[in-house]
Amino acid sequence: MKPFKVGVCQMQVVDDKDANLKRAVDLMEKAAAKDADLVILPEMFNCPYDNEKFPLYAEDRKNSETLRTVSESARECGVYLVAGSIPESAGENIYNTSFIFNPQGDVMGSHRKLHLFDIDVPGGVSFQESDTLKAGEEITVVDTDLCKLGVAICYDIRFPELSRLMALMGVELLVLPGAFNMTTGPNHWDPLIRSRAVDNQCFMAAASPARDENASYVAYGHSMIVDPWGEVLAQAGSDEEIIYATLKPSRITEVRRQMPLLKNRRTDIYELKRRDI
Amino acid sequence: MKPFKVGVCQMQVVDDKDANLKRAVDLMEKAAAKDADLVILPEMFNCPYDNEKFPLYAEDRKNSETLRTVSESARECGVYLVAGSIPESAGENIYNTSFIFNPQGDVMGSHRKLHLFDIDVPGGVSFQESDTLKAGEEITVVDTDLCKLGVAICYDIRFPELSRLMALMGVELLVLPGAFNMTTGPNHWDPLIRSRAVDNQCFMAAASPARDENASYVAYGHSMIVDPWGEVLAQAGSDEEIIYATLKPSRITEVRRQMPLLKNRRTDIYELKRRDI
Repeated sequence: MKPFKVGVCQMQVVDDKDANLKRAVDLMEKAAAKDADLVILPEMFNCPYDNEKFPLYAEDRKNSETLRTVSESARECGVYLVAGSIPESAGENIYNTSFIFNPQGDVMGSHRKLHLFDIDVPGGVSFQESDTLKAGEEITVVDTDLCKLGVAICYDIRFPELSRLMALMGVELLVLPGAFNMTTGPNHWDPLIRSRAVDNQCFMAAASPARDENASYVAYGHSMIVDPWGEVLAQAGSDEEIIYATLKPSRITEVRRQMPLLKNRRTDIYELKRRDI
Repeated sequence: MKPFKVGVCQMQVVDDKDANLKRAVDLMEKAAAKDADLVILPEMFNCPYDNEKFPLYAEDRKNSETLRTVSESARECGVYLVAGSIPESAGENIYNTSFIFNPQGDVMGSHRKLHLFDIDVPGGVSFQESDTLKAGEEITVVDTDLCKLGVAICYDIRFPELSRLMALMGVELLVLPGAFNMTTGPNHWDPLIRSRAVDNQCFMAAASPARDENASYVAYGHSMIVDPWGEVLAQAGSDEEIIYATLKPSRITEVRRQMPLLKNRRTDIYELKRRDI
């Protein structure tokens, strides 16, 4: 595989869908102008991260203004796109769903967040996604011309079983749209993202919304791109910006040859299996 | 469970067994004088981390000067001890083995390193433990009056399956004697130790040998104690020192109530099982 350039958009999300879509398209065009081959948007890029807003912003995938808009932009920009996530309505249910587009604007796959975020830290953050959202049922891995790409959303990354299975399924780049917050971010964001890369010797690209101190849920920011050795290739601050890195898939082969972690697993002592197939 | 104090000894290991044993006893006495209830020594605390030295320093557990010495010291100091690790000879084989003692000086359990460290980074570190050592066959969890304690050794920590299974077995403190090096340490030591604590919402205590720039294998140091929220309670530099922290087992209950990660696992999507039982 050839090296390719990733642009991770730490987008400022506001309480106005049209403004969010305009902003997303603007960031995609900027990233494409910098020769990004793959653009990544954050979790809930079209909607504030707020249980009251999810039903109001939710769209059916068969008739989605958001998906039409970003699909068209991916095609015009000629980029692969992991469209962070949106509240997706499907019958009675709402999912937290990421859609993956090719440079022709076609949907290549979608990931419905598998692990719903339910947290209650006195004096910190309290949020119960399961009040409004339903969890997905499948692990998401997509073959692109750039690399084999897996998508997990935010809380999903806290479960090492999932990222390990994705690595065993051949994932070379794990994309994580994720909105950590000011309670979990400072202690958890960096070590979790780096250790998933180190454990699985793959690339990680994590896209957070930009921080908005006035929102009901304050995102941590610090979007980052990490290589298979755990080296941070690029990291954002808390404001809106696009970070870039050129990923060399050959680096995966190199690191795995130097320290063959996946081969050194003691599968006679423990066994990790998919049950969603 | 009541709070208890841990002392992690970042001991300077030299190429002289008697000197190492004297140093270990000295550090144990110092930690006991500071009211440590549990003392932890580093990986290969009686022997340089060197394939040529392992067979020369190896001892049979039934007739071990090292184990006699530290057992007596644990009894005299009245402390629990995780005696880092030593090269343990057993018939034809040599294992990298940690012994756990109670304050009466009795062996409560032992852990033979499960994952052997084989690495070859051009321009960095090259080391093949499997040239001289044999791997263990069992996960090690011990019930003490302080807490339920699990032991893993160095490279073992790179396999999230193991620490997850230990957490599911009830481990409250995962003790890691470990000698990372100047190639792996800077990018891997901190995120791995903190993420295992964060994923499994348990305490981590990692004991490295002190750094010796003249050794054939230069240890990274930076021994650390981390709480179930991933907060670093204490961290060493590169020289010999003892770091301390008081661990409150109630913190585990608190963190797991705030964010019930172990309950939120999608065991319908993936399954992790022990095979060593």
